[in-house]
Amino acid sequence: MSSKCNAEDLILDATRACVEAFGVRRTTLTDVARRAGVSRPTVYRRWPDVTALVADLLTRELRTLLLEEETAAKDDLLGENTRVRLVRHAAGVARGLLSHPLYTRIVDTEPELMATYTFHRLGTSHRMALDIVEAIVTEGQEDGSIRTGAPEALARVVLVTVQGTVTSRRLYTDVFDEEELIGELAVLLDGYLAPRNT
Amino acid sequence: MSSKCNAEDLILDATRACVEAFGVRRTTLTDVARRAGVSRPTVYRRWPDVTALVADLLTRELRTLLLEEETAAKDDLLGENTRVRLVRHAAGVARGLLSHPLYTRIVDTEPELMATYTFHRLGTSHRMALDIVEAIVTEGQEDGSIRTGAPEALARVVLVTVQGTVTSRRLYTDVFDEEELIGELAVLLDGYLAPRNT
Repeated sequence: MSSKCNAEDLILDATRACVEAFGVRRTTLTDVARRAGVSRPTVYRRWPDVTALVADLLTRELRTLLLEEETAAKDDLLGENTRVRLVRHAAGVARGLLSHPLYTRIVDTEPELMATYTFHRLGTSHRMALDIVEAIVTEGQEDGSIRTGAPEALARVVLVTVQGTVTSRRLYTDVFDEEELIGELAVLLDGYLAPRNT
Repeated sequence: MSSKCNAEDLILDATRACVEAFGVRRTTLTDVARRAGVSRPTVYRRWPDVTALVADLLTRELRTLLLEEETAAKDDLLGENTRVRLVRHAAGVARGLLSHPLYTRIVDTEPELMATYTFHRLGTSHRMALDIVEAIVTEGQEDGSIRTGAPEALARVVLVTVQGTVTSRRLYTDVFDEEELIGELAVLLDGYLAPRNT
């Protein structure tokens, strides 16, 4: 089991190196197998094509990013209210995505792959992020820092808004630099999550 | 000049009919010319391929939608503050997009076309929408109903958020129906545009 996980990680590492060097379209399963030092069938057995491999790689990278940001948000913000913590967490994930070479490369050069998870359906990383966000929303509703509403629904808006802002980053380049864009995203999310005065 | 405009409209009408019947991929310039009752060169002279034709059609449809919604928002909301009017206008555009067969068909079946205007750059309809929104933001800042900040920047966030919510509608189907989704978008935009208490 543990050696299987290691082989998987090796192959995903090799995929990342190939994609960063050549792009998704010019990467083949043979390139990946060679770079990982495994046989072609070892790769084929689990991933039918490069798209499947890249999808799993992206899931792994996003999981790492989500967990790192969750830990950072917990450590840094003891004493802050839950809404502030959630907004900071979401902004941290957005910052992580904007500076993630694989993620931004896929947005720029593989519109079909990104379109699937923007226009058509939720993926594995989405589900993982939603679990994290829903739990924080529930906590924030208990302490009164987040407005009422189904936590599932509020979490979905937060997720899609973070993703939409990051994937559309090029539509913002003439008005915001990256840090300003993240600041605006934080204002947007905070305004959405705050209890209404009226 | 006026007959040229009419020919253009005829060709764009024919494009819409073909795309609604067959989809973008199975529409040819020959189909469009035949349905419009014009010669193939008449179409080719102005549009090199179906993608260019669909892009112009989409621009025309979005322009119509924007202007209709702008008029509706002006008529219905005399006496309301400018922020309320802008949010209502944006929600009206979102509702119009969600019920627009060509737009939703393109989101569902032509990810490359939609990806261009989501991930990569602003288009003609975006520029047109931004002009409208920027003017309303400026007005709302003058009457104190919209927070401070460069109107250009606030308008950009409104535009990208409306587009992101509409194009990602399928990521919301298990938590919101269409009217609920538009309601959440309105909360999101209102919270973003409202002057901050703190």
